[in-house]
This record gives sequence, structure tokens and C-alpha cells, in this order.
Amino acid sequence: MVQDICSHRRRAEVTLLIRYIAFLLRDACRVDHDVDILIEGNRIAAIGSHLSAPAGAEIVEATGCAVIPGLINGHTHLYQNFLKGAGTGLCLTPWCDRVLFPMADVILRQQRAGNQRPAYLWSTLGAIEMIRGGTTCCQDLDVSMDTVFQAWADVGLRGVAAITLADAWIPPEVMVETERLKQSTLGYLERWHDPAGRITISLGPSAPFLCTDELLTWTRHTAEKYDLGIHIHVAETAHEVGDSLRDHGKRPLERLEALGLLGERLSAVHCVHVNDTEIELLARHGVTVVHCPKSNMKLADGVMPWPKLKAAGVPVALANDGCASNDLLDMWEEMRAAALLGSIGAGNPSAITPADVFRAATKGGARACRVDAGTLDPGRLADIAIVDLSGAHLRPIHDILQTLVFCARAADVRDVIIDGRVVMRQRQILTVDEAALVGEADGVGQELYARAQQSAVRR
Amino acid sequence: MVQDICSHRRRAEVTLLIRYIAFLLRDACRVDHDVDILIEGNRIAAIGSHLSAPAGAEIVEATGCAVIPGLINGHTHLYQNFLKGAGTGLCLTPWCDRVLFPMADVILRQQRAGNQRPAYLWSTLGAIEMIRGGTTCCQDLDVSMDTVFQAWADVGLRGVAAITLADAWIPPEVMVETERLKQSTLGYLERWHDPAGRITISLGPSAPFLCTDELLTWTRHTAEKYDLGIHIHVAETAHEVGDSLRDHGKRPLERLEALGLLGERLSAVHCVHVNDTEIELLARHGVTVVHCPKSNMKLADGVMPWPKLKAAGVPVALANDGCASNDLLDMWEEMRAAALLGSIGAGNPSAITPADVFRAATKGGARACRVDAGTLDPGRLADIAIVDLSGAHLRPIHDILQTLVFCARAADVRDVIIDGRVVMRQRQILTVDEAALVGEADGVGQELYARAQQSAVRR
Repeated sequence: MVQDICSHRRRAEVTLLIRYIAFLLRDACRVDHDVDILIEGNRIAAIGSHLSAPAGAEIVEATGCAVIPGLINGHTHLYQNFLKGAGTGLCLTPWCDRVLFPMADVILRQQRAGNQRPAYLWSTLGAIEMIRGGTTCCQDLDVSMDTVFQAWADVGLRGVAAITLADAWIPPEVMVETERLKQSTLGYLERWHDPAGRITISLGPSAPFLCTDELLTWTRHTAEKYDLGIHIHVAETAHEVGDSLRDHGKRPLERLEALGLLGERLSAVHCVHVNDTEIELLARHGVTVVHCPKSNMKLADGVMPWPKLKAAGVPVALANDGCASNDLLDMWEEMRAAALLGSIGAGNPSAITPADVFRAATKGGARACRVDAGTLDPGRLADIAIVDLSGAHLRPIHDILQTLVFCARAADVRDVIIDGRVVMRQRQILTVDEAALVGEADGVGQELYARAQQSAVRR
Repeated sequence: MVQDICSHRRRAEVTLLIRYIAFLLRDACRVDHDVDILIEGNRIAAIGSHLSAPAGAEIVEATGCAVIPGLINGHTHLYQNFLKGAGTGLCLTPWCDRVLFPMADVILRQQRAGNQRPAYLWSTLGAIEMIRGGTTCCQDLDVSMDTVFQAWADVGLRGVAAITLADAWIPPEVMVETERLKQSTLGYLERWHDPAGRITISLGPSAPFLCTDELLTWTRHTAEKYDLGIHIHVAETAHEVGDSLRDHGKRPLERLEALGLLGERLSAVHCVHVNDTEIELLARHGVTVVHCPKSNMKLADGVMPWPKLKAAGVPVALANDGCASNDLLDMWEEMRAAALLGSIGAGNPSAITPADVFRAATKGGARACRVDAGTLDPGRLADIAIVDLSGAHLRPIHDILQTLVFCARAADVRDVIIDGRVVMRQRQILTVDEAALVGEADGVGQELYARAQQSAVRR
């Protein structure tokens, strides 16, 4: 399977020219007009006017289109694609009990019985949804199996798998023995981690309250040894902060600092309930905060203090979170939700700007995922979305950034290029048989959900 | 032009059969499976399994689709389709000064010079965007011109034009002399109001602070005389409430009650800053409140107290508001925004349910617009949207209402039927030359916006 991934790298001879681009958003603050992008292998080779196409180059016309860095979903749980709409109306803890853990139990039973097909299907379903909306990379904190990675390899998505680590709080039936967890994590690292390719591993201690100090310390040492990212939910609910103070005498981020986990390799998801001291800690250590506005709203978690994080210089990534608390893997709606929640949360319509949210959805996400993408510059990875601007809902255009942030939709994305390869052209996924896989995923997802609900009822 | 509208009514012989419907959402709480809908003329004639198609009936297959009442946008300003993304970062009052009034000035100059084409174009642009997303009816509080109505007649939208009435606060250059305003309102009524057709008039005193007691009293008498709806912005900002107390010794809704305007014919837009006494007034008089969550968020107005309105039994409609403060005419995103804002605003994820928002987007909107639609029942107007459920982002479906509210998007709407007539089939608008009109609207919109911005700069 490793060979299968690596084969996507051995295409240095392939060149691709995207030409006649009406609006090229190199980042949130740099817009070029009427330019071309030349891609060699998996990286951007040149950006300029009237570039000449090398012999044999594949040509993509972008007349009348906006071309942007591929959107990056900084945090998701792809298995929750089987849980769309499940648990609406529940807060985080009862939702875990009634929806999440029963599903995790069913999935683990499948895995123990040797059936990894469901993981392939939920990952494919999520990858297709993301690519169709111009998302080229995600960080997936998940019940990992090898078929998760295989799905990304097949569909052509760039993915960071944060391998779930947890040894506290969760019920025994979905708990994996700690030594086995560590070994399986190292196994995924061995088999799949490829910093030069499309698939990398990070370590995902699920949340401070789900981990002992021992496991968090192991996480830190392992991340340093192999130069891996660490990805963790932190301070999502007020409840979590209270429990941490009670059990550890420290707030969650203070505890992580004491254990040496704060640093540039850390991406901290949610950070809704952080005080000024913790914001200072995040800034000082260069932690990337991953913002999930729709999920925070749906679960009534609270509002992440983005204006304060911004003032402190904390880098922010944007994310969809899992499909059970969103329920879309749609970074366009997420950008709008972030801008709107930013305004209403601060009582100030200029607190969070369209540039802030676009940057979080691109450059911020690249930082959280530790991938060399997120802006369109020579030398960067060629992860690119081409947006058709012909829809009535996009006209007239007075400011392309505002049009994209406030009006563009997933269905406006026409072509998607990941790692220098066209994976969607004219709304057609080129890599896999989409209809067949979506159909199969639908059936398996319905069946597993029904089983999980039966076991939840029996509890 | 009146004949043009009426011609849409004289088609009683036309029958349409929508068959093999996978999920029929008759309203938020009634879902039928594997049924057909028979439409005769502009109304639903029958709903049932395996209905036989009368000779000559047009057949629409809905295998694998959801069929829902057409969504109703309870409040918009279509001229703002020329202002997408304009004024981001501004609160309501500076936004009026810098964006809205300069545009209104330019538009009025066009109108005085006899050029009604811009109004035709912005209305067409908005109508196309709405129909493409399954919205079959809107209430438009607007700078009305005859071409607004002509656009609706041509595209096939159902529309309620709330004729703008204002005689206070707004700057002199965009103020119309009061007697002329009244006469032109009666002129629109005479030429266009057709309760049996697709186009009706309501009276739109723009907001309490924009109207003298005299104009509000004239509005009341005129509405009673001709049996018209009254449509008004109320209590959008805390500022407005303070000014009303200062100038009139009453809060805005108390003032409207004193003037006799509260009643079933009134739809009150926003109602963000209403206290318990005012909520009781709204409930007692049967006023429909029109909720614009995305606009309220973007302008940082505040959060409408929907849970309290719900507890008091106040009917709620959902709306996009104008494109300068949203910036989409997309009722799917609006439903999600309403559900998510409902959860975070109340700190309770079950405060506002998917059924609440779906009902507001259909039945509630029908009440606000005083149209006999909003549920799918024999005898009701045949205003219907057919949603293609094949997208990866919609699978698997565990609860069709939650899938629609949380996952479905404008681009999933396949066909739209308004007043018994198919206006969009397989994503093709059948009534007008969409590409030509969108192109023309784009050019004119850009030109008028540039002129308005120049005049704003000169102020």
C-alpha cells in the first residue's frame, strides 16, 4: 500500500498549465488578474502572464474563474459521515453516550472481526464531499484503520491522520489497551507516514480529559522523536475546564503546558473556554488554534474568542469538525459561519474580516496540518481549487474576496488539483467510481447506524 | 402587463403529475413515502400512491428525491442584489449612510430619467437565484418600479411587493414627497395586485423610526380598506428602541400597537430587541415575526429571542434579508444559520429544532406573505421544490428532515414548480434566457454600484 501512495510522487515529468485565470487569490491579501500557473510534478513552478506551455503539458482553462489555494479542513472525524444528523439537540456529553460511543463500539467490533471496508467507505464518502467543495486536505482525528489511508490514496485527497490516543473517561467497550494503542500508532507511522507524499500521521490525544499524564508524555516524546504534529481537542466546554481544575488543579491548556505539549507542532481544536492567561500561552508557544464555528454553535459549546486570539497573534485554522455536529464538510459555509459568528459574538461587524476567515481556511489550515500549501506561490504544493463565477448568486462582483467568502458555494467549485494532479474536472471526480462508492457507503452507513442505535437502546 | 400575469391563471386545463416521490415532506412533521402529487391548474388536486395520470398530463419523475413545499423568503430587498458584499464590517446606520442611501439615490435618478431597466435586472437576478435554490415566493420591501413586477411575471416567481413607505429620518435626496408616495402605492395596487394570481402588494412602512404617526395611520386604513398585508422592520437594533423611547415615550412595538397596526396582517421583521411585554403583544395580536438570522449576525444586531417567541406561540417566518447583509438568497443556509444561532443563542442545542426552522421556511413564510402555500395539501397552491438526494454530502439519510435542514444545499434542488408551472427542470430555468439576463444584470449592477460609490465619496 505504501507503494501505491509513493506512485503519486513519481510524476515529476508531469506538467500542468492553468491559464487565463480571471482572479488568482494567492492568499487573503494578494489578488492577481489575468495570469497563468505552471505546475511541475506536485509543486507550483511559476505564476505569471502568458506562460508558455511546455510540450506535453496538460492545459486547464480558467477563463472567468477564480483560482484559490485548496481549502483545508483543519479538523474532522470522517467516520461521522455515517452519523449525519444524528444526535441533533444533544450537548456534547449525552451525545457521546447516545450516539458516538455506540457507533464506535459497532465499528471496533467490525475491525476486530477483520472488516475494514466501512472505514474505506466513510473515508471515501468524506473525501468526495470535500473535493467536490474545493477542500484539498484535511486532518482526521479518527478510529484509524489502514483502509482510511487507502481511501485517501485512491481518491487523491491530501490527508493528515491524527491517530486517536485515549486512556481515560471513555467506556470500557470502546477502550483499546494502552500498549496496543501505542504499538498500533507506531505501525501506522511505519506503513503510511510520508512527509514528501500526500499522507502523513500526527498524534491525536483526543482531549486532555481523555488522557492520563503518562499518555500525554508518551505523545510528546514520540512526536519529538519522529517530528510529528500533535492534534488535540481542548477547552470545548465549560464543563471540561471545571473538571480539569478539580482533577488536576490546572485549566486544560495549563496542564498541557506543564507536560511540555505546547509548541508549534500542536494544533488545539476548539479553544472556546480559554482565559487571557491561556491565550497568552497559545501565542507564546506558537500553537495553532483550530476553529469549528458550526460545530460549536450546534452543540451550544460557546463562542471561541477569536478577536482576542487575533489581537494576541495566535494563528487560527478553520475546520468543519465531524459530520454529526455540523453536518457538512463544506468550508464555504464554514467561512461564512465563522465571519457571522465572529460579528455577532463580538457585537462588532468588523471584529473578524473576510480576509481573516479566508486565511484561516487556507494558510491557517496548512499550518495546523503542517503541509507546505495554503498560499499560491512558486515552490508550494499544487493544491488548488478553480471556482466557476458564472452563477447568478455571485453577481455582480465588487470585491472578489467578499464574493468568495460570502457568496460562493461548494457547487461552484469546477476543478480541483491536489499534489499537482487533477482529481475533479468539470465537476467529475476522475479518480474513483463515485456513484458506486457513494451507493455502497450509503448502504453500509445505514446498516451500522441502525446497529449502533439498537445497542444504544439496550444500554 | 396585468394581462401578462393573468395569463398564468388561465391554465386550469393543465395537469401535472409528480410521481414516485421517495420522501414527501408535506410539512415539518408529516413525511409520506412512495407517493405521487397531482396538480390541476395552479393547485394541488391529490396526493396518494400510484395516482393515474390524466390524458395529456405533464409527468415529472421524482424517484430518489425529496419533494417539499417551495421555500418562502419572508423578507428581502432585491435591489441589494447589486450590493453583494458591499459594506461588510459596518453596523446598520453607517452602512445606510455609506452604501444604501448612495445606491438608492442613483436608482431614483435612473427612475426619474425613465430608466426602469435596472429594477427589471436586479429582480430577475434575485428571482433566478431564489428559484435555483427552491425558493418559490418572496416578500420584497423595495424601491418598487413596474419592471420589478414584470420580472417576476416573466421568470415565474410568486412575489409580494411591500411598497416602501417612509417620511422621516432618511436624507432628502432619496425622500419621496408623501402624497406622491401614497398615490404611487395606490397605482401599484391598481396595476398589479392580484390575490388570485402570483403577484400581490403589501404596504411596507419601512420601520417605525422612518415613519410619522400620520403615515402609519394611513398605512393602517389603506391596508384595512384593500385587505393588504403590512410589512415592517421592527426592533432590529438597541439604538432603535432607545430612539423610540426618547421620541415617542414608547418602545417600537408599543407605538405600533397604540396606532392600531398590530394584527394578523402584520409581519414584523427582525424583532431582535423585544422585551417580554412586546412578545406578549405579538402573540396576542397574531403578528408573524420574520427572522433574518444571517443578516442579524453579519450586522451584529443581536439574537432574536426565538425560544421565548416560540413559548409565547408567536408564528415565525424565515428570511434572507437583502444581499448586502447576507449575501445570499439561500434558504438552506438560512435554515442552518437559524438552527445554529438558535442553539448558541440559547446555550441549549434543543432550543430550536430542525422542525421549527423548516416550518418557518415554509408555513411561517406563507403566513407572512399571506399566500395559500407552505404545506403540501390538496387545495393548496402548487409551489413545490424537488430535491435530488444523490449527492455524497447527503448520505446516508437517517432522518430526512435533518438531512434536508442540515445537509441539503441550493444546488441540490433539481426542479421547481410555481403556481402549477414548472419553472426549473433539471437545473434549467425554462422561462427566460438566464445567461443573457445575468450577464446584463452583472454589467448594469457594476456600473450603478460604481456611480453610487463615487457619490458616497463626494458627500
